[in-house]
Formats: sequence, C-alpha cells, structure tokens
Amino acid sequence: MAKQEKTRDYGQKIASRAEDFAAWYNDVVLGAQLADYSPVRGAMVIRPYGFALWEHMQRFLDTRFKATGVENAYFPLLIPESLLAKEADHVEGFVPEVAWVTHGGTEKLEERLAVRPTSEAIMMHMYSQWVQSWRDLPMVLNQWNSVVRWELRTRLFLRTSEFLWQEGHTVHATAEEATARTLQMLDVYRAFLEEELAIPVIVGRKTPSERFPGAAETYTAEALMGDGRALQSGTSHDFSDHFTKAFEIDFLDRDGGRSYAYSTSWGLSTRTIGGIIMVHGDEKGLILPPKVAPVQVIIVPIWRKDEEQETVRAYVDRVQAALGSNVRVRADWTEEKSPGWKFNEWELRGAPLRIEAGPRDAASESVVLVRRDTREKQPVALADLSGRVDALLAEVQQSLYDRALAYQREHTFEATDIEQMLAILDDRRGFILAGWCGSAECEATVKERTRATIRVIPFDSAGRAPCPVCDTPDTERVYYARAY
Amino acid sequence: MAKQEKTRDYGQKIASRAEDFAAWYNDVVLGAQLADYSPVRGAMVIRPYGFALWEHMQRFLDTRFKATGVENAYFPLLIPESLLAKEADHVEGFVPEVAWVTHGGTEKLEERLAVRPTSEAIMMHMYSQWVQSWRDLPMVLNQWNSVVRWELRTRLFLRTSEFLWQEGHTVHATAEEATARTLQMLDVYRAFLEEELAIPVIVGRKTPSERFPGAAETYTAEALMGDGRALQSGTSHDFSDHFTKAFEIDFLDRDGGRSYAYSTSWGLSTRTIGGIIMVHGDEKGLILPPKVAPVQVIIVPIWRKDEEQETVRAYVDRVQAALGSNVRVRADWTEEKSPGWKFNEWELRGAPLRIEAGPRDAASESVVLVRRDTREKQPVALADLSGRVDALLAEVQQSLYDRALAYQREHTFEATDIEQMLAILDDRRGFILAGWCGSAECEATVKERTRATIRVIPFDSAGRAPCPVCDTPDTERVYYARAY
Repeated sequence: MAKQEKTRDYGQKIASRAEDFAAWYNDVVLGAQLADYSPVRGAMVIRPYGFALWEHMQRFLDTRFKATGVENAYFPLLIPESLLAKEADHVEGFVPEVAWVTHGGTEKLEERLAVRPTSEAIMMHMYSQWVQSWRDLPMVLNQWNSVVRWELRTRLFLRTSEFLWQEGHTVHATAEEATARTLQMLDVYRAFLEEELAIPVIVGRKTPSERFPGAAETYTAEALMGDGRALQSGTSHDFSDHFTKAFEIDFLDRDGGRSYAYSTSWGLSTRTIGGIIMVHGDEKGLILPPKVAPVQVIIVPIWRKDEEQETVRAYVDRVQAALGSNVRVRADWTEEKSPGWKFNEWELRGAPLRIEAGPRDAASESVVLVRRDTREKQPVALADLSGRVDALLAEVQQSLYDRALAYQREHTFEATDIEQMLAILDDRRGFILAGWCGSAECEATVKERTRATIRVIPFDSAGRAPCPVCDTPDTERVYYARAY
Repeated sequence: MAKQEKTRDYGQKIASRAEDFAAWYNDVVLGAQLADYSPVRGAMVIRPYGFALWEHMQRFLDTRFKATGVENAYFPLLIPESLLAKEADHVEGFVPEVAWVTHGGTEKLEERLAVRPTSEAIMMHMYSQWVQSWRDLPMVLNQWNSVVRWELRTRLFLRTSEFLWQEGHTVHATAEEATARTLQMLDVYRAFLEEELAIPVIVGRKTPSERFPGAAETYTAEALMGDGRALQSGTSHDFSDHFTKAFEIDFLDRDGGRSYAYSTSWGLSTRTIGGIIMVHGDEKGLILPPKVAPVQVIIVPIWRKDEEQETVRAYVDRVQAALGSNVRVRADWTEEKSPGWKFNEWELRGAPLRIEAGPRDAASESVVLVRRDTREKQPVALADLSGRVDALLAEVQQSLYDRALAYQREHTFEATDIEQMLAILDDRRGFILAGWCGSAECEATVKERTRATIRVIPFDSAGRAPCPVCDTPDTERVYYARAY
C-alpha cells in the first residue's frame, strides 16, 4: 500500500458515495480514522477508533460463543510445512498465499514455517494428542488472533495481507453432532450480524467450488453492500472426517471400538468492519450501529466568548451525568475547531447521536439532539434526555437494519438467462436470483461471462427457475452476485 | 519442545516442589492443563484453563490502562528489516532472535520481514505520520498481541519462542511527561501484580547493562519466586528522544518552532502466569488468586447410589443458585472419577475454594467448604454460604499476598562481599541486598562469579554498603538475585 501523506487533512472532504463508491469507501476508512496504510505491503494499521469498534464486536460475539459452550485458547503462530501438508486440499488451497519463515536469528531452519493462514493443521494436531476417548469429546475451542495471507491486490479491511479474526475449531464423536455445531455457529453469526451490526444476511450453503479448502460443506452468511456487491460475512465449515483422518484423531467409543472424530471450523474477521461501512454509510460518511459504536453520543459544546465557555462546561457536565455510565458519551472540547467542523467530523465518524449544547440550551435546561441516520433534530429537556437517548439508540439500531433490509430486497432481481443477468449487473447491481443446474461448468460459465458468482444456496427456498446456462428447467434458485 | 505422549495421565502425580522445583513447575503447568507443548520448536499451546486465566488478567490490566487514558490499536505483525534497523541499539538487541519471513507465496521478497519481536519500529514509524503539532500529543496506544523471539532454551510460559503480551507505546511533547508516563505505567503494573495477582514486587530502575535495547532508562517490577529466584514481571521504558529522532517524530510546538517528541514503551506478558504458579503454588499444585481464577469455587458432588444422585443434583442446583452469578462456580459431575480424585484434581488446578455436597449435606441444608491455601475445612449452612464464600475469597486473596510478602522478606539477605553472596545463593537463595559502586565491571564480575544479576535499584532506599567487588565504601544497596 502507498505511504500516506504526512499532511493529510482528515475529517472533511470525502468522495461522493453515489459517484465513486470505492473512493468514498477509502476516504471514510481514513477520514473516520478507523485504519491507515502501513509501510508493510498489504498490511494496515487499525487505529484506536477502528479497534474500539472491533472490541465491541468481539465482546458481543465472544459472549454469544461462550453461551454455546465455546472456550478460548491460543495456538502457535508458526506452523511447520509438514503439518500444513497433511490434508491435501487444504495445503493446495493455502500454500500459494503463505508467508514463510525460513530463518530464526542467524540460523537457517531445517523446515520452513508458515505464518498461520488459518489454524486447522496445528489445532487438529493438538486434538490428536488430547482426544483419547468419547469422554474427551466434543472439544470446542476458539482463538482470537491475526492471520497472514499473501495478497497482491489489497483494500483496507476487505482484503489485506494480515487481518484479525476469530477461528473456532471443534471435534465431535459423530457426523451429526459436527453438522449441528456447524449450523449452530452459522446461526450465531447470523444473529450477531443482524442484531448487533444491523446487517441483514442470506444464509445457506456454498457451492462445491466455493468451499473452504478441505471442507465437505461450507455455510455462509452473505450480505449486500451499498453498491450492490456481495460480502461473505462469516463462514462455518463442516469437515466431516477429512481432517480427523489426516491427523489421526481417533478415539475409544462407547462400545469399546475405535472411531474417527468429525471436525468443524468457523470464522469471522475484521472484513466485517468493511461490511458495516458499506451497508450503513451515506454521503456524509460512516453510520455506526449504536450497539457497537465506540462513541454512541457525541456532545458538541457551543460557545463564542470565554465567559460562555464556563457556563457551557458546567452544563455539559450535567448532561453527561444525566446520561449515566450505560451510554458511551464523549464531549469534543477541541479548541481550534468550530462547532460546524465538529458536526461534520462526527457525522463522518458515524456517531449515532449528537447533542448540541450552548448557553441558550443551558439557560433553558435542554439540548438539541440529532440523529446521524436521518439527521433529524429535536429539542429535548434535560430531564427527559436519558430516556430519550436510550429510546433513540434502539430506534437507530432498528432503523439501520430495516433500511438495509429494504435495500437488499429492492436490489434482489430475478433472471432466467445470462443476458438478463448482464443487464441487471450493468444497470442496478445486487443479488440475482436465478436457477442453477448443479454443474460446476455452468457455474464457471456464469462467472466468466458476468463476473458474478453463486454466493449462496439459501436454506429458505427461493423458488425454481431454469439454469441460465444450460437451460435445464425447474432448477433450484440460488443467489448470484459480484462480490468483494 | 518434545512431543507430549498421547497417553499422559493428567491430574494426579506431580514432582515434589521441595525436592525438584523445576520438575514440579512443569508438572503443574501440564497437569493443571494451563498449557501444553506444541510441535513448533519453543512454542506452546495455551489451553482453555490457562487462557481463561489470561483473559481475567487482561480484563483487570486493560481496565487499569483505560483509566489512565490508554487506547488499544493494532499494528502489523511483519516488520521490514529496514524499519527495525533505524534505531541502532534496538536492532542490535533484537536481530539475533528474530524469525525472518523471506518468501510470500512462491515469490522471494526483496526485503525480508521480521515477525515482530516488539513493535517500537512499526509504531514509531506510524507516529511519525500522525504527529504534526503539539495538539496531536500525547499519543498513548497499546496493543494486545503475540511476539516471536527465537529462543534456544525454552520453558513453558517463562521462556518461549512465541508469547502473548501487551505493549504500550507513547509519544509526548516533553521529556518530563514521557518520564511521568513511564513511572505511571510501572505503578499500574505494581498495583496489578500486588492487588490482583497477590504478587509483592520491588520496583525501581534497571542498571544500564540490563536496559531494554534503545532505552534511556528501564524500570522494573521484580518478584521473588518460591525457589528464591527472581522474575522480572513488568517493565516500563523511558526512551527519551532516541526513537523519536531515529524515526523523525517532530512536531510544531506551541511557540511555532519544531521539536522532537519523547517516547516510552511498557509491557507485561504471559510470563507472569509462570510467576503466579511459582509464587503461590505448593506441593499439591497450583493456587490461584481468587480475583483471576477461572473457577473460584469448585463444587464436588458426592453420591454413591443412583437414587442419591438425583437428590444431590437438586441440592447442588440450589447451592449454585445461592452463590449467584458474581462468583465463578463450576460443578464437576464427571461420572468416571471419584470425589477423592476430583479433590486432588482441583487442588492441582488451584481453585481457591471447594464445596463438598452429598446426601447428608442436602439433608442438613449445609455444605463443607474447603480453602485451597490452608486446606482448612468448615461446615457452612446454605443460608450463610454466599456471604461466607465472598468473605473467604477476599481472605484467600489477602492471605496469598501476605504469605508471599513474608516469604520475600524472609528470603532477602544482606551481604558485603562475594563470598557471602555465594554462601547465601548456595544455601537459601533469594534477594541479596548488597552495595553497588555503579560500574559495569563490578556488576559483570558478580554475575560471572555468582550467576546473580542486579535485578533492581529500588526507588525506596535500601540503605548503603560497600561494593562487594571493588570495596568502594558506602554505595547504594541494590537487589541481586539469580533470575529466570
């Protein structure tokens, strides 16, 4: 990535979302100070505002995990090549994008070590040590870490050579239990994305060609971005016994025989932050869902003369006290910036609510409360403020979801042949519901001709239609889209 | 590290702490399932029980950080060699133990990348982009991550080629402010170690030869382990302008001129888990300070006949309900293990309190409550249980600290020459208070002859004595010890 110019002026000018979505996206990431470019090719720095967002996301997701019995652990970053090579599809899928450690200090290593691109290999190896009998099962571990995948073309949050994520890896006594856990974790992602990030998703299966390397089945939660492209926003993989056989995870079963275990893995990454930006943002910048916003309410104090500042400061203290500690509030007292500048800055940074408080507000014991999503202003008496803010935060959260769902529905089109698909993609973009005969060839033809891929075979039937390539009638309809 | 045998029998037999402290330590780490060896040389796996301990430690420390204005962020794992080389002492100190990435996918890199051994270089580079004027200062960022340092001799938690830690890095407008932040963070570590981990520490400065590579001053919190060896348990570095000049972090100051900033860094790692084990453990295994124990109260249900099990299960439900959600309670219902086995297992795993509950306890509406530290048993009526448990958890926390402080005081000896130092080290081990003339030569001579190093020049004066090597009279007394 290019080195950022030292004199960059944050906070004010961003590209038009309607005219240049990609430039708008980059401006929002940089201008809202979510992240920045680094001198390391393809890697980015997550700045405090972006990281605080990730911490809130982590807390919600980790709580959901633990409620299903997940335990956190930590496995080594560097993985011997021979371990990575144990599962054939897995090594083939990942080796082209591995960063290799070849030297430790001044010593050349006998075997090179992969900087983990994912941890199936090392975790399955350890499970093979720990699992002896059916009593040791299931093992349901997760780790929050960073992974490295050598990417040539990179974009902040969406595709970087290093990213943060969580990866859960489980082993079970039966195939049924492994499948149930895979689906359970997909539903955890769906609930997290919809209820905490206000991002509606289509859940279902991936086609064989889109599966994770080594998986028997990959499940996905697919979201539609504001430019009509899809983003895979959480995946859950059922490995059947592919890895457990490769890593010899067998156990003494209840009947005294030996059986192979069944395994799963599931992950969600900082890529999802890109999803939040692209689903909810507008021409003014970011709009953060209140549940995960680092600053839920920004207070912009307004004063002209020095003698006013003291009055306003005392009043803002009262406003903060009235809001209590359950709401994340910040007052922006920066002296060299005007209130108008701060309004713009915190709209760009996506704080869900803004409070304007000046001498007249202090005199009337009220404030002006502004919603970020609708930019609607309302005067609120100090006495009513806490209840009004709580209600509005919930309202903004719901409203962001509703708006995103309406957008997704308005941008889901039907097509029966490739020409129709191309027309939709050229014009409005979005999900295209079309049939699929089930063949990898027809899937590849659509991709080649339209650059759209099958994003998801939905659990909820989407009706039937002919395959747009081979014209086989009455095939299952799936979601096609161009994707990030 | 060696591959662990698949048939290892956890939970019962451990080496004697009094007879073989090192073997005892390893047995406790493995037997309590805190961590395990991995197939990656020098790297370990932190198992769920050990990681839950780390999570509780993180929560306390992170809360303390944030109360002082620290913000979390994330910086890249891979650092170009040229960046690492910008500060001369720093590169010299770290390059011998760096793991190098030389290939990305199939491509050989033009410049090799260090797997971060510490993040001064990458963070100072970014600060040079972000800091323009005095208004941008201070910057006070921290990251929780893993670092890699290629070590030949490794020990679980204490010295591994990869470990987890936090590293805070700050830049300030003045030298005074940087020094104040360095000392503030040292005090955060002291308070965390003493109040949450119940580990008493001696705080003060390191000698120049023991400073962090590139530091103008390194401050340390040193703890004494149960075998009389010292463990550096948190360090805070004042860099003056060494890094800011190397990385060109200059800014427009209040007077309109340009000044260099001043920087600090400070870190605490999973090594400290080794400290918890070695300070508090006993012949039966681990003893965890209640504030950070993943399981504060373990309930061992006791039943013989099937018909008793139902009664006991209903009663244990009531016991758990009585304890509420503020206490971390687990009931061990494992069927194939006897109550006696479970008593041993949870003593080995260091749960601060144990509750024994059988049919007779159910009948009398009481339980047997057992302290892990003193192993003292007491009957408690169910009606009094919650209050009693809260009080006992606080009592155990305090008692562990008092015991460790008494041990530290009993194992702090005075010496005036090297022969005395050797006699102490051969016999009882511990801290040795002796003078130091301030010369690196005398310091090196003591190290060479006794294997003890100067651990800390204490803030609180420890009196005066002659230098044990050159006999200069009336020098400042410092703490010597053999160390991990």
